Amino acid sequence: MAVSTPAPLDSSKLETQFTQTERPLPDHNSPEQWSQSYQTDHMLTVSWDVTNGWETPKIGPYSNLSLPPTASIFHYATTCFEGMKVYRGYDGKARLFRPHLNAARMLRSAQRVCLPSFDPAELEVLLIKFAEVEAKKWVPESRPGTFFYLRPMMLGTQSTIGLQPAKEALLCIISVVFPNIDDTPVTKGPIDGSGETSKAFSPLKATTGTKEENSPGLKLFASASSHVRAWPGGSGAAKIGANYGPTLVPQQEARNAGFDQVLWLYGGSGFENNPLVTEAGGSNFFMVWKTPEGKTQLITATLELGIILPGITRQSILELSKDEFKDELEVVESDFGIEDIVLAHKENRLVEAFVAGTAYFVTPVKQITYQGNDLRVPLSEGTSGKYTKAIREYLMAVQYGQRESKWGVVLNEL
Amino acid sequence: MAVSTPAPLDSSKLETQFTQTERPLPDHNSPEQWSQSYQTDHMLTVSWDVTNGWETPKIGPYSNLSLPPTASIFHYATTCFEGMKVYRGYDGKARLFRPHLNAARMLRSAQRVCLPSFDPAELEVLLIKFAEVEAKKWVPESRPGTFFYLRPMMLGTQSTIGLQPAKEALLCIISVVFPNIDDTPVTKGPIDGSGETSKAFSPLKATTGTKEENSPGLKLFASASSHVRAWPGGSGAAKIGANYGPTLVPQQEARNAGFDQVLWLYGGSGFENNPLVTEAGGSNFFMVWKTPEGKTQLITATLELGIILPGITRQSILELSKDEFKDELEVVESDFGIEDIVLAHKENRLVEAFVAGTAYFVTPVKQITYQGNDLRVPLSEGTSGKYTKAIREYLMAVQYGQRESKWGVVLNEL
Repeated sequence: MAVSTPAPLDSSKLETQFTQTERPLPDHNSPEQWSQSYQTDHMLTVSWDVTNGWETPKIGPYSNLSLPPTASIFHYATTCFEGMKVYRGYDGKARLFRPHLNAARMLRSAQRVCLPSFDPAELEVLLIKFAEVEAKKWVPESRPGTFFYLRPMMLGTQSTIGLQPAKEALLCIISVVFPNIDDTPVTKGPIDGSGETSKAFSPLKATTGTKEENSPGLKLFASASSHVRAWPGGSGAAKIGANYGPTLVPQQEARNAGFDQVLWLYGGSGFENNPLVTEAGGSNFFMVWKTPEGKTQLITATLELGIILPGITRQSILELSKDEFKDELEVVESDFGIEDIVLAHKENRLVEAFVAGTAYFVTPVKQITYQGNDLRVPLSEGTSGKYTKAIREYLMAVQYGQRESKWGVVLNEL
Repeated sequence: MAVSTPAPLDSSKLETQFTQTERPLPDHNSPEQWSQSYQTDHMLTVSWDVTNGWETPKIGPYSNLSLPPTASIFHYATTCFEGMKVYRGYDGKARLFRPHLNAARMLRSAQRVCLPSFDPAELEVLLIKFAEVEAKKWVPESRPGTFFYLRPMMLGTQSTIGLQPAKEALLCIISVVFPNIDDTPVTKGPIDGSGETSKAFSPLKATTGTKEENSPGLKLFASASSHVRAWPGGSGAAKIGANYGPTLVPQQEARNAGFDQVLWLYGGSGFENNPLVTEAGGSNFFMVWKTPEGKTQLITATLELGIILPGITRQSILELSKDEFKDELEVVESDFGIEDIVLAHKENRLVEAFVAGTAYFVTPVKQITYQGNDLRVPLSEGTSGKYTKAIREYLMAVQYGQRESKWGVVLNEL
């Protein structure tokens, strides 16, 4: 008897069964859009087990998952996920943004919790094919400048109370509708950035003025040492469920105190007197400041300690800024601490700040509160800093087909 | 219209529907027992939502859970759980061990990930009532000295991609059969202690000799700084899924290198040169050693930094040891570091060591490997240390009805 090898993930085997009961497309700015729980018509699933490997990928009607209460995911947080958007361009085309980077990160996240491996190029194809099924209806050509949210996820599904590497798993891709944030007044939403919209903000429409006045930037609460998101030797660099549930308590405390997000500090060994600035909510954090030497610098935390998520928006901003702003900005990934921000504030060297991620996109920060002190961050353009605005415009132009870029992957829609 | 208050968890409303399709009781030492995934006939479920509060608790046939792919648990590790056992005594009675402590810890764990609150006394009653339904069949009187495993769990079930405190949740109690570890030869099982059996070990039968020779204690691999389980300001003191999935990688590395468990060190701020000894796998760690002053001391990590689980077996061992061994042992909860163990080993001051938890029970340690050095730990009684053996015997006598104790809660079986 031949020894069989577990089958690899194979996008070419994809089978599609269209739903017989289509759901209506919610209106612009409707409660359904704002619920973040109104799913599109379909889902993509691929089962895996340690003996047979990956089964046939299937797109079918969106439906509940039926799992035994003993399934690993319910007990041990054996889950990882990604967040992406499907954008409807002003040129009529639908696009994903650098999906191969999501596929590659999903693999790294899966490995961090012993979920099964796969060729990320195959996942990328599945992401594209699923988006192609849903795009025409869920971001119709009549709604350029809108998107829906794509959520790939993988769960450990084997039935056993013993903690162990995955023997069975489920890869799943689902989508939910999102409001068009450009059309919407300020709404106090959840503060994490793991999939929900931020405050409404529309730099592309900034010249019209009125909406902007409602969106004056985020207020961040710098975390106390009693709430630490991630640490060296932990899992903070992976997009896994375990990094999110435990952040709910400090996030609620911050919200209840009138803040939008937690600015996560890390005051561990070597950083006790000047805790590192790491992330904000579920987004990466960027600061533009004048250095003591007088340079204008765009700075964000390094990936070296493994305590921040290597964001795809983050990477893209670093890449585009080194090119677009090469005569104006020094662009650095570096450790920097909250006391550095306090000092720069005192010396009037803060230029602007923003958070960046798929969910929160690029959102200006107007205030950082640390140990009871409110540090105002300038918004030079009224509702945003100059660079924040330019970065937003650059990325949106790519996402909505107004700027030619290999970062925008055009879908061949069904 | 009257304003309604969300209903509290109310065990008096419990409804029971017995299964029509009973599963056979697996044989002693059968593959089903060893699988840790063979469930008993029933499960207890209670739904909760933020508006209505807790619904009617129901015991019904064990069955799959049907949840939307957008449910919080699948993405954000909004889950907590407990591990308990239902013991069949040599006196014919079935018992739980200090279930009010599990109920109280479950509440603390739930709060750590913003799952709903409840009166732990109500959960304790539900645990007892569920155990009373299952005990007669699943730990029959014909099998004294055996147990099955009880797993209370709570999941965030609301459908929304936005990270947020639970708006809907499910409390669930399930059970799986376990092998009688006294009957079984050494088996290399999973190394965590989150619900699986450890190596077979039977101090109550130690005088018979033969089985013990196969159970010469655990080999622990002291974690490198690249793998840190928990951190001050994190969630290490809660029994939540997020503390488990991320430990799979280092545990697999340890197993692949021939070790049984990871001995988790914490070398953060202030402890860089002598990393704290915290836990072993999913169990608490105890050391008996001679202090430099010549006292014989039983030591385990303090709860103060919030980086270890406050184990119920741990607490019980501390309490009983202060009484039983008051003339022999100094019993302390204190910070101690791996270098303290290295020095005590060098100076021949190590007496014995063991891990303790519901799943792993009380299991002797024979070796700790740190930075390439194998530190042997004495097993004065051949397969166990003297105190380890006495502690095991004490606890088993309580659990199996051979010692009168308020720690053993006798069930009124159906």
